[in-house]
Amino acid sequence: MALIVQKYGGTSVGSIERIKNVAQRVARFKAQGHQVVVVVSAMTGETNRLIGLAKEIQSHPDPREMDVLVSTGEQVTIALLSMALMEMGLKAKSYTGAQVRILTDAAHTKARILSIDEENLRRDLNAGHVVVVAGFQGVDEKGNITTLGRGGSDTTGVALAAALKADECQIYTDVDGVYTTDPRIVPEARKLKTITFEEMLEMASLGSKVLQIRSVEFAGKYKVKLRVLSSFEEEGEGTLITFEEDAMEQPIISGIAFNRDEAKITVLGVPDRPGIAYAILGPVAEANIDVDMIIQNVGADGTTTDFTFTVHRNDFTKAMEILKKVQSAIGAREVKGDDKTAKVSLVGVGMRSHSGIASNMFKTLAAEGINSQMISTSEIKISVVIDEKYLELAVRVLHKAFNLEQAA
Amino acid sequence: MALIVQKYGGTSVGSIERIKNVAQRVARFKAQGHQVVVVVSAMTGETNRLIGLAKEIQSHPDPREMDVLVSTGEQVTIALLSMALMEMGLKAKSYTGAQVRILTDAAHTKARILSIDEENLRRDLNAGHVVVVAGFQGVDEKGNITTLGRGGSDTTGVALAAALKADECQIYTDVDGVYTTDPRIVPEARKLKTITFEEMLEMASLGSKVLQIRSVEFAGKYKVKLRVLSSFEEEGEGTLITFEEDAMEQPIISGIAFNRDEAKITVLGVPDRPGIAYAILGPVAEANIDVDMIIQNVGADGTTTDFTFTVHRNDFTKAMEILKKVQSAIGAREVKGDDKTAKVSLVGVGMRSHSGIASNMFKTLAAEGINSQMISTSEIKISVVIDEKYLELAVRVLHKAFNLEQAA
Repeated sequence: MALIVQKYGGTSVGSIERIKNVAQRVARFKAQGHQVVVVVSAMTGETNRLIGLAKEIQSHPDPREMDVLVSTGEQVTIALLSMALMEMGLKAKSYTGAQVRILTDAAHTKARILSIDEENLRRDLNAGHVVVVAGFQGVDEKGNITTLGRGGSDTTGVALAAALKADECQIYTDVDGVYTTDPRIVPEARKLKTITFEEMLEMASLGSKVLQIRSVEFAGKYKVKLRVLSSFEEEGEGTLITFEEDAMEQPIISGIAFNRDEAKITVLGVPDRPGIAYAILGPVAEANIDVDMIIQNVGADGTTTDFTFTVHRNDFTKAMEILKKVQSAIGAREVKGDDKTAKVSLVGVGMRSHSGIASNMFKTLAAEGINSQMISTSEIKISVVIDEKYLELAVRVLHKAFNLEQAA
Repeated sequence: MALIVQKYGGTSVGSIERIKNVAQRVARFKAQGHQVVVVVSAMTGETNRLIGLAKEIQSHPDPREMDVLVSTGEQVTIALLSMALMEMGLKAKSYTGAQVRILTDAAHTKARILSIDEENLRRDLNAGHVVVVAGFQGVDEKGNITTLGRGGSDTTGVALAAALKADECQIYTDVDGVYTTDPRIVPEARKLKTITFEEMLEMASLGSKVLQIRSVEFAGKYKVKLRVLSSFEEEGEGTLITFEEDAMEQPIISGIAFNRDEAKITVLGVPDRPGIAYAILGPVAEANIDVDMIIQNVGADGTTTDFTFTVHRNDFTKAMEILKKVQSAIGAREVKGDDKTAKVSLVGVGMRSHSGIASNMFKTLAAEGINSQMISTSEIKISVVIDEKYLELAVRVLHKAFNLEQAA
């Protein structure tokens, strides 16, 4: 007998029929003798419907009231799923975030979980109940309803698994696992049986949308065994996110992540003196624009330098405006921008013990005439920024060059 | 400066536009220097939509989960109304039933309020906030969400007014007050400026749908000044529900209530012995069927008796089945039923000091050839059961006979 936390996203509970399917899956696990906690999101479309109502009233809805409003979405799902479980003859009980007492800070619409009171849940589990918890929501110290921000249901699932010391946290979604890269671009992309937390973090933050990055961090921190599975398949092992020490042998490269929404800004000919990076990026940060890659090169004349960074494409125009304003103050010769760029990254913990990965990557791209505009590396990844139009090509040739279609 | 509790029903908050109208009305009261607590129902149709979802899963949805589900309806409204108030520049804060802590018993879907913690509300009011509270819902001792049953938002309004010792509880609805009878049947029906609590109780329980009977009982018990008004009119005083001692002079008859959903069952020729009423009504009560009027007559032979009672028309078939089963056990000669009956009642506290009301009523009905099948009286009302097809006629002729179109 194991204790399993299962999380189902909005698509998986998007209709009464699908809610019944979820109930059937839960029933199968119960029949195997497991204790099951289910975390659910709002039914697809519901959160957007509620946000739409709010925006008819306030263009920037009050955050506290927004949380009161959108948290009803998951509350509807927990009640309906509990009913579906009872209809199958199981004992079930729903909990809102406040009822569990998932205590968060007071940062409405993007709150962070501080602690979870798992006592009531454990009592219900021991009494044979399936416990159904509303994802994405909690309550602050003063009893105000809070939400964790979009995708926060994954985090609820992992946090509950940690609090209950669950044997496994299963994230059910509309894909059946984590792939070496997006199968829509590379049909030969292979589903990974396992991936390490570090790799998953890189994959998630680099644009692979399978899991929300905060939930992966959380799982890594609290050593929660995490598995990604499809809610639309009867069978299947999905992909298990492992701790590095568990794995017998590491593949060199686990996958290729990419991000299409990059924009690149270059500040040319700035004086090469201390504090110049802050002079450039300070005003950008003040405007709440996240900066991703940053590269600084010594210029040709030895006294000036070129400074390049990337931002999300939505922030490109605003960032350019800011830099045009500060250009003369920082003594830069020119500010150039390009919002037709993309980032492609190789990810793999095996890189640590293998050399030649980077050069193989550059050789592969060069053979196709793809120029690497920026390069950034960490212990387990290599990212290059390229012209957006080559993105699919780059992902395909890299996937082939590193034999990712074959199991390691 | 007064403290006013305003309650708006589902129709009054049935769209974003109407929610904005409610916000404007609240703002006018705030501008006059009053403190305002607003209690709201779910937007029209929302509760039925949610119940519909539940019934797709369970034909008899689990009561606890039903309350979790339908309580989201009011939660949506409190958030949207708070936003609308803020958009008008007012300070506003929403409260679910659990957040106020409206403590109820654990009778899901029909819970009763035990106590209200008004401290937080009072602090917010003193800080200049409009406080927006979800009607119809509370929380039991164990933290389970409960609902007060349909129409329970009126009760929430009155209970909050009692707890806060409000100067007035205003119930906004789609009619502009309490009428002498239904204007759809008698176009000359007159809006009453005042009606006593006792009369209102009789009117409500007899089928006048303006106010929910429990809220009237509550208001009477806790001496809450209650006023019924239209949410669709800018001006208007509505109808004030008064305490009898406040009124200078009482009209003899305040109004005519009626109820179309009656069904009559007669048990003929039962032995006239102690315990016979229980033998007949016990099995009916056990099947959770409410019995309204009960009449017992000594039969012609002096040793048997005829026993007649009324039930809601929806319960008629079930009640008949039960009585057919026990007929031989209680020694009855025959069980007869009629589900084409209706009840019409004259209500007025002035009846206490005036005789001849009943005889005038019977004379008026007899003149139209309407037979009184059953008669029941209390201190302030006279009810007769008649053939359903005469209902409108009976209401019209009685309204005229007692000059109800003229102010007293």
